[in-house]
Amino acid sequence: MAIVYGGDYNPEQWPRETWAEDMRLMREAGVNRVSVGIFSWALFEPEEGRYEFAWFDEVLDLLAANGIEACLATPTASPPPWFAATYPEAVMVDADGRQLTHGSRQGFDPSSDVYIAKALQIAEKIAERYADHPAVGLWHLHNEYGCHNTRSYTKAATAKFRTWLRDRYGDLDGLNAAWGTAFWSQAYSSWDQVYAPLPTPTIPNPGHVVDWKRFSSWQLVQNYRAEAAVIRKYSDKPMTTNFMTGSHPEIDLWEFSGAVDIVSTDHYLAGEDPQAHVNLGFAADYARSLGAGKPWILMEHSTSAVNWQGRNRAKAPREMLRNSLAHFARGADAIMFFQWRASKQGAEKWHSGMVPHAGTDSKIWREVCELGATLKSLAEVEGSRVQAETAILWDFPNAWAQEHEARPTNEFTAQGIFDAYYAALWRAGITADVAEPEGDLSKYKFVVVPAVYLLSRKGAENLRQFVNGGGTVLVTPYSGIADETDTVYLGGYPGAFRDVVGVRSEEFYPLIGGRVELASGGHGTIWSEAAEPAGAEVRDTYADGTPAWLVNRFGAGTAHYLTTFPDPDTLDRIVAAAAVDAGVAAVAEAPVGVEVVRRAHDDGRSWLFCINHTDADATVKAAGVLIDVPAGEVVVHREHA
Amino acid sequence: MAIVYGGDYNPEQWPRETWAEDMRLMREAGVNRVSVGIFSWALFEPEEGRYEFAWFDEVLDLLAANGIEACLATPTASPPPWFAATYPEAVMVDADGRQLTHGSRQGFDPSSDVYIAKALQIAEKIAERYADHPAVGLWHLHNEYGCHNTRSYTKAATAKFRTWLRDRYGDLDGLNAAWGTAFWSQAYSSWDQVYAPLPTPTIPNPGHVVDWKRFSSWQLVQNYRAEAAVIRKYSDKPMTTNFMTGSHPEIDLWEFSGAVDIVSTDHYLAGEDPQAHVNLGFAADYARSLGAGKPWILMEHSTSAVNWQGRNRAKAPREMLRNSLAHFARGADAIMFFQWRASKQGAEKWHSGMVPHAGTDSKIWREVCELGATLKSLAEVEGSRVQAETAILWDFPNAWAQEHEARPTNEFTAQGIFDAYYAALWRAGITADVAEPEGDLSKYKFVVVPAVYLLSRKGAENLRQFVNGGGTVLVTPYSGIADETDTVYLGGYPGAFRDVVGVRSEEFYPLIGGRVELASGGHGTIWSEAAEPAGAEVRDTYADGTPAWLVNRFGAGTAHYLTTFPDPDTLDRIVAAAAVDAGVAAVAEAPVGVEVVRRAHDDGRSWLFCINHTDADATVKAAGVLIDVPAGEVVVHREHA
Amino acid sequence: MAIVYGGDYNPEQWPRETWAEDMRLMREAGVNRVSVGIFSWALFEPEEGRYEFAWFDEVLDLLAANGIEACLATPTASPPPWFAATYPEAVMVDADGRQLTHGSRQGFDPSSDVYIAKALQIAEKIAERYADHPAVGLWHLHNEYGCHNTRSYTKAATAKFRTWLRDRYGDLDGLNAAWGTAFWSQAYSSWDQVYAPLPTPTIPNPGHVVDWKRFSSWQLVQNYRAEAAVIRKYSDKPMTTNFMTGSHPEIDLWEFSGAVDIVSTDHYLAGEDPQAHVNLGFAADYARSLGAGKPWILMEHSTSAVNWQGRNRAKAPREMLRNSLAHFARGADAIMFFQWRASKQGAEKWHSGMVPHAGTDSKIWREVCELGATLKSLAEVEGSRVQAETAILWDFPNAWAQEHEARPTNEFTAQGIFDAYYAALWRAGITADVAEPEGDLSKYKFVVVPAVYLLSRKGAENLRQFVNGGGTVLVTPYSGIADETDTVYLGGYPGAFRDVVGVRSEEFYPLIGGRVELASGGHGTIWSEAAEPAGAEVRDTYADGTPAWLVNRFGAGTAHYLTTFPDPDTLDRIVAAAAVDAGVAAVAEAPVGVEVVRRAHDDGRSWLFCINHTDADATVKAAGVLIDVPAGEVVVHREHA
Repeated sequence: MAIVYGGDYNPEQWPRETWAEDMRLMREAGVNRVSVGIFSWALFEPEEGRYEFAWFDEVLDLLAANGIEACLATPTASPPPWFAATYPEAVMVDADGRQLTHGSRQGFDPSSDVYIAKALQIAEKIAERYADHPAVGLWHLHNEYGCHNTRSYTKAATAKFRTWLRDRYGDLDGLNAAWGTAFWSQAYSSWDQVYAPLPTPTIPNPGHVVDWKRFSSWQLVQNYRAEAAVIRKYSDKPMTTNFMTGSHPEIDLWEFSGAVDIVSTDHYLAGEDPQAHVNLGFAADYARSLGAGKPWILMEHSTSAVNWQGRNRAKAPREMLRNSLAHFARGADAIMFFQWRASKQGAEKWHSGMVPHAGTDSKIWREVCELGATLKSLAEVEGSRVQAETAILWDFPNAWAQEHEARPTNEFTAQGIFDAYYAALWRAGITADVAEPEGDLSKYKFVVVPAVYLLSRKGAENLRQFVNGGGTVLVTPYSGIADETDTVYLGGYPGAFRDVVGVRSEEFYPLIGGRVELASGGHGTIWSEAAEPAGAEVRDTYADGTPAWLVNRFGAGTAHYLTTFPDPDTLDRIVAAAAVDAGVAAVAEAPVGVEVVRRAHDDGRSWLFCINHTDADATVKAAGVLIDVPAGEVVVHREHA
Repeated sequence: MAIVYGGDYNPEQWPRETWAEDMRLMREAGVNRVSVGIFSWALFEPEEGRYEFAWFDEVLDLLAANGIEACLATPTASPPPWFAATYPEAVMVDADGRQLTHGSRQGFDPSSDVYIAKALQIAEKIAERYADHPAVGLWHLHNEYGCHNTRSYTKAATAKFRTWLRDRYGDLDGLNAAWGTAFWSQAYSSWDQVYAPLPTPTIPNPGHVVDWKRFSSWQLVQNYRAEAAVIRKYSDKPMTTNFMTGSHPEIDLWEFSGAVDIVSTDHYLAGEDPQAHVNLGFAADYARSLGAGKPWILMEHSTSAVNWQGRNRAKAPREMLRNSLAHFARGADAIMFFQWRASKQGAEKWHSGMVPHAGTDSKIWREVCELGATLKSLAEVEGSRVQAETAILWDFPNAWAQEHEARPTNEFTAQGIFDAYYAALWRAGITADVAEPEGDLSKYKFVVVPAVYLLSRKGAENLRQFVNGGGTVLVTPYSGIADETDTVYLGGYPGAFRDVVGVRSEEFYPLIGGRVELASGGHGTIWSEAAEPAGAEVRDTYADGTPAWLVNRFGAGTAHYLTTFPDPDTLDRIVAAAAVDAGVAAVAEAPVGVEVVRRAHDDGRSWLFCINHTDADATVKAAGVLIDVPAGEVVVHREHA
Repeated sequence: MAIVYGGDYNPEQWPRETWAEDMRLMREAGVNRVSVGIFSWALFEPEEGRYEFAWFDEVLDLLAANGIEACLATPTASPPPWFAATYPEAVMVDADGRQLTHGSRQGFDPSSDVYIAKALQIAEKIAERYADHPAVGLWHLHNEYGCHNTRSYTKAATAKFRTWLRDRYGDLDGLNAAWGTAFWSQAYSSWDQVYAPLPTPTIPNPGHVVDWKRFSSWQLVQNYRAEAAVIRKYSDKPMTTNFMTGSHPEIDLWEFSGAVDIVSTDHYLAGEDPQAHVNLGFAADYARSLGAGKPWILMEHSTSAVNWQGRNRAKAPREMLRNSLAHFARGADAIMFFQWRASKQGAEKWHSGMVPHAGTDSKIWREVCELGATLKSLAEVEGSRVQAETAILWDFPNAWAQEHEARPTNEFTAQGIFDAYYAALWRAGITADVAEPEGDLSKYKFVVVPAVYLLSRKGAENLRQFVNGGGTVLVTPYSGIADETDTVYLGGYPGAFRDVVGVRSEEFYPLIGGRVELASGGHGTIWSEAAEPAGAEVRDTYADGTPAWLVNRFGAGTAHYLTTFPDPDTLDRIVAAAAVDAGVAAVAEAPVGVEVVRRAHDDGRSWLFCINHTDADATVKAAGVLIDVPAGEVVVHREHA
């Protein structure tokens, strides 16, 4: 099998004479799959109920004739202008209560029955017509669910939210208990009194808001499932939708990933961040973890600049090659771009493409061709897996709960803390999976718990068993504080597992100065606690002797507990110590900024991907071999004979 | 009589078994009063017109049985969910024109007749049932009037605003003259043309806006009066409501304080401000002044962190004791907290309580018990008064007028300037009252006039008489500029009292560089003026010789006039000089950061409260005695035999 | 003929006794024209259809009796309160979708038919009554069109926008092609699907938005034309309206200037900017250019502080004289202020006037009188012209297109880049016109092209002919990128004229560090490009050798092309080099900060205006003479005998 290579293809933006050139260039670059139809609803159905597919027949025939597989999309992410004009109330309402309008994309309310009906109708038309077309290899449902319109505060959403709550809590007593409505006179006596959380005079009820976020995420998964059911009537081919694993935690991907046949994701670099490749690593590891380790599809990334960041840096020479191969290294078996040809008009015309504005006499095109050839040469890697003994926890309701405005400090977010700990693992060269707090942790030796404030009793028990059974955890402040209804565990923090970490904190002291020195010479940031050891050994302290880092032996395992957020250098020391306790190590010895990841088949064949993000030539030392990796280059080292 | 000690008690958040523990712990801590019922409307009246009071009978009976007085609230600050569901248009509309919804608290429009009717109905039910309950000692009407929803831009408010304007101005000629509507084509020819000041294309009419703020404040006082009239039908016990004197100038407390039987206030520290205890002093002095010097109730403060600031610092050990006793020193005879038991759910779960999440094995609980014992030991102080020979002026319409966007500079607010001058008095150890510009100043020797831009002719005459009669004033820039209709006094600034200060300014020169050096070596900030002495002696100048500080003898008194806002060090020098002119002095000699206040009975018994806010032990010298005050501690020195 | 001198006169704000004083003071100051009636609609028509003109008859009679010309305004910029009360939906809706209300000024939707009808009706009443009044010398239609309400998102506007689009594009195919609606499923199948661009879930279509801005500008010009047609029925006197040429690019003044009989403008200093007089120079040059070089009217400027900036600095002594005479130097033959007498009430009471709050014993009044006398002494200058061999391009749709959120970087605006290049010309002492890209450039030797991103094919051809014919251009980055429909010119940037500049860029690299060093020692900011010379000579480079400044000979002319935005010092060097190529020079040799401009009659009489903005005395050397210019003063040197 070949590695899949290609991108989004939007031929409708170009005259027919360009299509022929597209086919020639795709073959030149080694493209073997393109995603089509994503934004074509307005052309498929220019007026409600009137369809025009002939132009698209031609596109698919061309692809088939050129041996290029079509990843065929349902175009339901972007309803046509007639939709909003006919059903203005089926467009989303934002958190401010504003009825939004057509004019961009995602102009719909996910809870709207009229939207859902129209979406299923166009999906069915497409499935019916193209299920058996020879070009079609898989289905791309919708596009980036949850981008821009996850939370739509319409009347339709309020109605479905009530039903969802009724299913969750059974009766109003359950709802009132879960949300703690005894305070502030919020007790509900009828389901009709519950609304989407539109603006209020002051702080909203946190239980209300986090359940709204759970519902909104759930609604989109339902929408996917409904489309999938329609497609399945006509086709047995695999279905997927493109997640956005590098950020954007408005939709619960643990829930969503259960609904797709294969995980796909999109990833875009934060152009200004010199360490943006670390976030890329996370996005890739996360996509892999969502599919339980199976190879996944990089549905979109960019050849160079994007258009939606305040300052959109073009990629440096060879940066795209490093990016693409880093995804591949972390388990992607399909490397695709948005989009084939850079648009010359519209909202995304400043987003780079495989064929740039400048044409084929360009750095971008030359690298696109080189990447196609490289992937072809690495076909044997296809289907191999990435192994990880370490996991870092991520939970969506936890992140959502921490978005609430009234908490000890607003200086950090769950995602920010997660990213800092993921980055520490990346710097340590430790390959990690992303895991759910309630998921199976038995295959890991080391688990990082980054600001998992909201932790269910089941999740807490899961971690307790993990440590008791010999695992090592590294727990940051503000973890294990409240249960799944955002109810604080009483008696001292972290109430969910004081016994596991052997610590009891009375109060939180967000740092006013921003930074505090530790006895070891390291530094803490943002946070401190009035913590006392309750069994744990104190490993580091603040100037006044209050513990900053404690280590507890619990059952057969070890828990590291921090009472501050260390700065990166200090954190690196702590992660190293905890990794030693856990018995996990880096994939290879490599200089800072040189990424090394292993892919391996079950039969023992394996490859080391060495990616040099630095300006200096480097040498990687792994399993007794020395691998030279020139500055800015990627070396794929075959470890087997 | 004992000093009152306690807090808000919300038993509805906890199971019945906790109530028994509450009683035991209250007795342990010395609690003798709690506020109850504040947020209980939804439990009292779960559906419109259906009442459930049995649970609350039990609460009051428990309190009575344990000798704890109930401060019984009307729950009208937080209508239940059914209210907004049934009467959505009776929830407030914000300044942006958005119809807000239920989901937090204060979900009502103060001008709504349906809200008022429902509020009076529940108040009457409660009064009827509990007026004669033995636990009930006083009434707590509503909660924090003006918090979040003072200004509600509904149609109902527009209608009442028109009536209020008609009462104020008599006819449209009066309105048009007062607002200066001849400009920008704003002359009204019918009352129906007047609206709440919702968003406009550009700068709104300042008279319109300031009258809207006057009306909005007045509406809330009317709401209080209406509730009080209902309660009075059933009970002769005193009524109060909790003001918020540390900030929040949306409601005219001079007007409001005339309606309460005893002044209460809430105060919360700005956790990040190392000088937050200065604002505490102001809040206390202001509460005392609102009650014309009579002892007052500290209805709420916090044992430690609050939940609504961006970064909520927990209080350091003993900080709460200093805070509580500083309020006591400045005239509070009741020291209460929000709330008894820290919530484990809801919007305020990160607000500290007397019983913290960590339980009774905690710094907070130990200090709560210590404070209870200390207050018990100081029972003889109860009823004594605080004497002040100095006043600092505060006026609400003045502050509101300065919120207008089109003025010489937006770099200061009335409250900011007031605070800077209050702080200078605090640093000087001079105990001050807060006074109205039109109030009786005859008992003072020294009056500070901080940015009293809007000053009625009556207020100007009041100040003139004060100086003429021998008083000393310290007048900052931007005082005496416009009359009560925000009409500039012509002929040169400060037009209200050029003769009193002996100065005439032609133009204002907000400082572009932010700071200017004075001939004396001090510094001015924000502001300068093209001022000429018109009788005054020049005491300090800018580099170009323009006067910065002038002193004028007027009648038997003295006026200090500044043409800039001096930095704190410079201001301290000026305040010291003016105080010498006035013949007022510090209560005691004490190091910087050591607060000293005297409470005295009419019979000559008196106590010096010495509060050491510093990290160093200190000695206070007062009336010939030396008082040692350890770092962070409070010493109450009995001055009589 | 005398130079015109005066200001806005709003007698309705003052009692009748003040009017007599006004006449006396106007004569004392040399005032010979005032603008009247601008904000008088509510007094002219206090109730719909009921008119009161008697008071205004008196005003005009007084002016006539005192020999003061009236510039008579239609009051249509500020409808009375009854208008909004009766027709609330005829007030504007803002970009957020909020229905705004009366309470400030400009309380109308320019597309509203009811507004237009009412405006024409009051205009006709005034024209009918006063056309032949002896005081009336010219007409002042409306006030500052486009201030605050250019873009009003009402249903009425949507309807007219559809008509405008139909006129522009003929059919929907034209619209769809121009806006590139093939992408994101935006193809329109009915005109009824097109709306004003209200908030959308994400990035709006750029073609849609820029056409909305074109339409909104066009609508206001139509409104002017409609009023002018009504006035013309009654009067042959010249008509004008006051533009705002110092900023505010929401209305296309190239289009609008074709509709007025004489160009007028308002200009206000950015009080905090020590170089605010440079922007004044631009405003004046632009006003002159809009009238094709003919003398123009400075309809409003300020004697001292304004009221609407965050920090409103009063003018330093003599600063107003420098400002007024700089306008005069650059071609104004009428110097007027807003307003005659500073208001004591209302939104603009902190805006200075000719008679300040302090009265006539003031710096302001003394300078007002001095200016009147100075202008009287310079009567012979009236009608003379300013000559420029240099032009700098400004185009409105170009600026609007660059307001779109999705572009390579948001760190600059078209206006910001324009201003930087205008300032470089100002520092170089080179007098410049402002020109349209498609305008006649044949009279210039040197044309600066500052970020003219959107450039029509016609405009590109115009520049090509200019260079080919011997002209010199200085082209900044992000020029010549897209055509008039915001469609990128493909094949490499700048696609509109790669041949003219002899350069091809593949990609844009916005600078992350903010600043980059050049080989020459200068610095670039914001931007860099992957540019290759395609014929041009490389004059300066980045550290890696990429070209930063290239010079190309094309036909008989020269093109300078930059790939970064140089800092001011570096830019001064580049402008100097390009000016040498162009054969243009400074008007005179003068120290930095001393402005020198020449006005000349066709008959050879000419004057050098030398304006010393510095604190030091200076000497200007021009045409062999040495002119001493004291610090802060203006010297008008007569060059002819």
